[in-house]
Amino acid sequence: MSGGVEWGLHCCVVLCGAGEPVPAAKLAKLHDVSPSYLAKQLQLLSKAGLVRSTQGQSGGYRLTRDAAEITMLDVVEAIDGPQPAFRCTEVRRRGPMAVPPERCATPCPIARVMDSADRAWRESLRVVTIADLAAEVDTTTPRELLDRARAWLSA
Amino acid sequence: MSGGVEWGLHCCVVLCGAGEPVPAAKLAKLHDVSPSYLAKQLQLLSKAGLVRSTQGQSGGYRLTRDAAEITMLDVVEAIDGPQPAFRCTEVRRRGPMAVPPERCATPCPIARVMDSADRAWRESLRVVTIADLAAEVDTTTPRELLDRARAWLSA
Ligand code: FES
Ligand code: FES
Repeated sequence: MSGGVEWGLHCCVVLCGAGEPVPAAKLAKLHDVSPSYLAKQLQLLSKAGLVRSTQGQSGGYRLTRDAAEITMLDVVEAIDGPQPAFRCTEVRRRGPMAVPPERCATPCPIARVMDSADRAWRESLRVVTIADLAAEVDTTTPRELLDRARAWLSA
Repeated sequence: MSGGVEWGLHCCVVLCGAGEPVPAAKLAKLHDVSPSYLAKQLQLLSKAGLVRSTQGQSGGYRLTRDAAEITMLDVVEAIDGPQPAFRCTEVRRRGPMAVPPERCATPCPIARVMDSADRAWRESLRVVTIADLAAEVDTTTPRELLDRARAWLSA
């Protein structure tokens, strides 16, 4: 999995809490990460329609919709793509004892279980939204730290 | 995920059905894959204690225990390791608004959800055994094909 997933999720939580557009440079500074690396993740989020950037004085990135409507899975798939980690290469169709093509209409039992595991993984990420994460950060982070962070973001 | 996972699982299902030790060369030929590539996967399975090879005339690989006692997760972790795909690098501790270390005793909410998704994935693979897969292959593959494959394996 791309390391960008952690950055993408953290950026979305920050944007949810910020309340106003945050310039990319500020997001990078906030987490002490290379602006060009973060820009790549923000572009992926933007391409997936999760964030949008505006130009100008008070421009920057913000979420395109309510954080309660953006799931962790949306962000993970924006950064890492929707392909399952396991890819069946149809091993069963190889060699002298190959299963004939007409018997391969249904997926191999192995691929089927791997796929259902992948669905369980995605389902766990689909039921948690950016709003849920932001609320948890809010309740577990000391008030003064949150206030300082918000002030810093909008300064 | 390593492509070896598909090979490792298929080998275990074959070994379960074979009923007698199968030489590595034969396993490779069966699926028309490079012997050295397959040898690497078999070594990983062996290192994890799932298969064992014996030398000599009727030597070869076999499962070390009943296929009902070997889960898909055992095989996947033997080949791909037990590390979750998502690795938290403690992004929250970076930059000018870093969460102070003493507030980081519990995992970041993001990491927690990613971990629970990983557990759901593993759980899906833990409840299916090699015996389950072999039984399904048995019921979905034409009898004559299975008989031919077994004869070929023991020839
Ligand atoms: S043929 Fe791909 S998992 Fe069996
Ligand atoms: S600090 Fe790693 S996921 Fe939040």
